Amino acid sequence: MAAMCAEARAGAAALQAAGADGRTRALKAMAEAIRGASGAILAANAKEVETARSKGADKAFLDRLTLDQDRLNGVADGVAAIAEQDDPVGVEKRRWSRPNGIEIAEVAIPLGVIGVIFESRPNVAADAAALCVRAGNGVILRGGSEASGTTTEIIKAVKAGLVEAGLPEGTVQTPPDANREWVTALLSLDEGGADLVIPRGGKPLISHVREHANVPVLSHLDGVCHVYVDAKADPKKAKDIVLDSKMRRTGVCNAAETLLIDKACASDLLPGIAEALKEKGCELRGDEASRKIVPGMNPASEEDWDTEYLDAILSIRVVDGPEAALKHIAKHSSGHTEVVVTEDQATADRMTSAIDAAVIMHNASSAFSDGGEFGYGGEIGIATGRLHARGPVGAAQLTTMKYIVYGQGQIRG
Amino acid sequence: MAAMCAEARAGAAALQAAGADGRTRALKAMAEAIRGASGAILAANAKEVETARSKGADKAFLDRLTLDQDRLNGVADGVAAIAEQDDPVGVEKRRWSRPNGIEIAEVAIPLGVIGVIFESRPNVAADAAALCVRAGNGVILRGGSEASGTTTEIIKAVKAGLVEAGLPEGTVQTPPDANREWVTALLSLDEGGADLVIPRGGKPLISHVREHANVPVLSHLDGVCHVYVDAKADPKKAKDIVLDSKMRRTGVCNAAETLLIDKACASDLLPGIAEALKEKGCELRGDEASRKIVPGMNPASEEDWDTEYLDAILSIRVVDGPEAALKHIAKHSSGHTEVVVTEDQATADRMTSAIDAAVIMHNASSAFSDGGEFGYGGEIGIATGRLHARGPVGAAQLTTMKYIVYGQGQIRG
Repeated sequence: MAAMCAEARAGAAALQAAGADGRTRALKAMAEAIRGASGAILAANAKEVETARSKGADKAFLDRLTLDQDRLNGVADGVAAIAEQDDPVGVEKRRWSRPNGIEIAEVAIPLGVIGVIFESRPNVAADAAALCVRAGNGVILRGGSEASGTTTEIIKAVKAGLVEAGLPEGTVQTPPDANREWVTALLSLDEGGADLVIPRGGKPLISHVREHANVPVLSHLDGVCHVYVDAKADPKKAKDIVLDSKMRRTGVCNAAETLLIDKACASDLLPGIAEALKEKGCELRGDEASRKIVPGMNPASEEDWDTEYLDAILSIRVVDGPEAALKHIAKHSSGHTEVVVTEDQATADRMTSAIDAAVIMHNASSAFSDGGEFGYGGEIGIATGRLHARGPVGAAQLTTMKYIVYGQGQIRG
Repeated sequence: MAAMCAEARAGAAALQAAGADGRTRALKAMAEAIRGASGAILAANAKEVETARSKGADKAFLDRLTLDQDRLNGVADGVAAIAEQDDPVGVEKRRWSRPNGIEIAEVAIPLGVIGVIFESRPNVAADAAALCVRAGNGVILRGGSEASGTTTEIIKAVKAGLVEAGLPEGTVQTPPDANREWVTALLSLDEGGADLVIPRGGKPLISHVREHANVPVLSHLDGVCHVYVDAKADPKKAKDIVLDSKMRRTGVCNAAETLLIDKACASDLLPGIAEALKEKGCELRGDEASRKIVPGMNPASEEDWDTEYLDAILSIRVVDGPEAALKHIAKHSSGHTEVVVTEDQATADRMTSAIDAAVIMHNASSAFSDGGEFGYGGEIGIATGRLHARGPVGAAQLTTMKYIVYGQGQIRG
């Protein structure tokens, strides 16, 4: 692992020497190489999906594992989109001067080597490699064994793209086998190892990484996201936003899990919203007040308020206005994404200011909590910690900085 | 410890509710309270210095421990300076809009609760409390037992200042005794504990914290700082900067430990620089080439290039121009502060861009690598890691951020 990290670091140095244009050329070549390797990637994937299915993998797992031509085009398009992004390396973030005449500039530089540990989504390999290359970083990719065939083909294409652009293929590394020792080594090396490890996957993976890592970890925990519909909400916006937040894709972390609805509008709006959700196949679990308004819903237990369903299930609670909603959110939010639907500016300001989450939406679907939607070209995950980066993590979040101080001979004396 | 963190968190909420003006008032009251408590603080300190001396503590330790009226005025002035700083909370760092009309703002918010573990410098208690209050954070202060009497008096004054400004004294917490279990608890609580721990002290403390922490750590490791004097250096600037970087204060992390001098100017400049250093009482350890130019210096061993002396000792090496200097720095730098002295713009640009350190000075003393000198009013340390913050850590570096997304009903569909 130390040798892999050293090779990735050498690759990062080459990326830095290549400059923004060189990195852009590499990303374009990577996208093309992935398109060119479609056949091999899809064949490897079909085999692995078949194996997983025969082993009885569940629907959500198979969905994460499966690539088809459309999805693979999406992966290549994602890499191409990252090629079009502004290069974050060398950007001067601020500059100020001091009374003694020294001038201080804060400049973005690559983070170094990033380890990405992921599970069954093979597209993570391409997204992570592309974002790391854009930010001038070397990367160690360690995917789950169920997708290792697919991942291997994708990484092969990514490396071919780098070579095509005259850059070392060693910039992107992956262990030669599925031995778990590689993960242990990646997490425990602190001198000469990765500068940052990003786990992408379920809770057990993330807990394991957090517990065992000596290196800094940027992790994405649960997405228990709420939509609050205020008395002053526009009814159509409210319905559209609840439906999109919950049902656009149910297995993703930015999907809503709980609807909080102001008691002042619940009788008016909840029946229509509930009807539309049920039509789309969503199971509803309500508190007592909401079940009085919409009979026939399952009751929500205390546990429901803390559950990330990752499925077509929504818990519903009637609350006594914005302050009660804030209280519920403060207690149950996972700090990922929260949505406030209201036409009242004061309520919106109060809530966007009081809620402590990575992303707070006013009158927009939780589905916009996403690197692509933020204009980052893609994302390596959505960070729910408080250090370094929070929310969608794109190339700019995979940099660090240095200060350059410009003097004319100043001393402190 | 969980109760202390919860109380600090409640204090942070009160700080946030108080707004920038409330935080400024609190900081001014804290500065005044420290001045008012001078007698008690200095008396406690004199006793502890005496005890440490009688136990045979070394000079550097006693220097770190000792407060006199001047130093204590400096501590109060530091808190007052932080009161004058721009408040970092709520600052919108950037805002952009997307083709679908949503607008995204990145806003700075307090980090939460910060644990500061320090050793014998009692002033750290005041600096850390002030910076945390400026950034809207609660703080747990855990100082070394040798300074616990002094620290207790300082914290008492800080709390009195908070109360004077109508804020909860519980915002600033400190364990009731010197039991090491408090440190263990602070490092291991991850739910409901501190959001960040900052160790300030020697290597053993920092290693202990890094090894045992489940919470994120912002740490400051060695300062093996170099001054490179280029052939095109202005001779007077070179001499002044070397002297100030090495001898202004020798026990601090931003002091220089190694002088790299271009062989093209070594015969001209080294004798004068060496003479001036020796006059100030600095021991010089040179490589072979430099000892030919300045006979009588002790020889530098390989180990010297990696040593942070924290004392009046300087290692000297003659190098073959900027590229050789870069090579030495890449191998031996601790990533803290590096100084380049040259009048050649191309060399300066090449070196400030190639060196990977928190702070790179061009024609300025390494002593400017300091929160106060950066205009931060003070600092809680100088971070040498690559995540979250790097270099002097002021109030702005003790914040995190959230995104607020402004929509008009947008959904992804």
